[in-house]
Amino acid sequence: MSHSEPGGVRQARKQRTRQALLDAALGLLEEQSLSSLGLREVTRVVGVAPTAFYRHFRDLGELGVALVQESLSSLHTTVRAVLAEQAGAEERIDHTVAVVERYVREQPAHVRFIARERHGGVRAVRQAIAGELDRFAAEVAAALKSQPVSGGWSDEDVRMLAELYVDRLVMTASAFLDVRDGGDQDTERWRAVACTARRQLRLIDVGRQYWRDAGS
Amino acid sequence: MSHSEPGGVRQARKQRTRQALLDAALGLLEEQSLSSLGLREVTRVVGVAPTAFYRHFRDLGELGVALVQESLSSLHTTVRAVLAEQAGAEERIDHTVAVVERYVREQPAHVRFIARERHGGVRAVRQAIAGELDRFAAEVAAALKSQPVSGGWSDEDVRMLAELYVDRLVMTASAFLDVRDGGDQDTERWRAVACTARRQLRLIDVGRQYWRDAGS
Repeated sequence: MSHSEPGGVRQARKQRTRQALLDAALGLLEEQSLSSLGLREVTRVVGVAPTAFYRHFRDLGELGVALVQESLSSLHTTVRAVLAEQAGAEERIDHTVAVVERYVREQPAHVRFIARERHGGVRAVRQAIAGELDRFAAEVAAALKSQPVSGGWSDEDVRMLAELYVDRLVMTASAFLDVRDGGDQDTERWRAVACTARRQLRLIDVGRQYWRDAGS
Repeated sequence: MSHSEPGGVRQARKQRTRQALLDAALGLLEEQSLSSLGLREVTRVVGVAPTAFYRHFRDLGELGVALVQESLSSLHTTVRAVLAEQAGAEERIDHTVAVVERYVREQPAHVRFIARERHGGVRAVRQAIAGELDRFAAEVAAALKSQPVSGGWSDEDVRMLAELYVDRLVMTASAFLDVRDGGDQDTERWRAVACTARRQLRLIDVGRQYWRDAGS
């Protein structure tokens, strides 16, 4: 690193290398798990010395945690926007499934990373994913609570419903990914996954509408 | 292998070694993924030569597929029994969650294996898990279809509901496993997971009862 380089340029370069390490790891993780990934494999792809890794991350676990943020932040933002829509239930369900579809088409490696490492061998990453999904559920719960149909619901039940929705999003993303990995991105099977996902969200919504009538 | 050994004894011994290999792999997989497991690690634990492995499995993928069968067969059988019960919805939900709880307490390593390898790095194992869960959903669908409340439902909707239930069982097992891994097997958190799981199944059941009324 040259001392004549202005601070801003140095920062930008450091940021670029950091992102290159994240991208390289994500690529390598398409075929393996984080617990079997070698630090040298990652630096070799980027073309930097193994020691350079430590200027950016303490270890592969810390890199994995950064990948968790990168994987979930965009989905998080988009779903939040859908939840805030002043739309009918049916329309909101269509938008939600469309958001998940786009997410899997545009960021399949991120989706695979989350699905694989959610129960993977690296505890720090498992905990980061659980923490993100937990915050996600809390946000969904806050959005659900503000809707009239939640009147009279206990906080526990709103949270229970929010977790059901978040799990549905995760499972739907996994189902799309399975179809995509089978090379079927624009087929009958892909549309069947979308259709099933919408019906399932619709059934949960019916359960929600009649929850109190059913004496629950 | 001695030629003076009777066939039955030889068969029994072969079966024991095969089971020892499965058990050793399952133990090693508590801390890593199948894609990073070494064949020699497994044979070392069992105390046989690496070449002996091939008398039982073609490769670690084939061993993984055998572990899938072993992991899901008992749960499969028990859930099938619950589905056949002539009980009310509430009671069936309680039994279902109790079955999942017992499964996680008694076979945590099997549950972890399925959760981890469902999206893991070994395609043959991913496909075996998907195939088993698919057969599971088909059985649940057949059981649901025979219940009066399914009158007038399309086969697609019964299947959609069955997949929702199977996903719920898998997610509930994962949630119990997370609590258990945190060392909280008999605490408030464990009971909270059971309670949430029952409420979620109840909400899905309400959705099911009112599905046609809601014009779906």
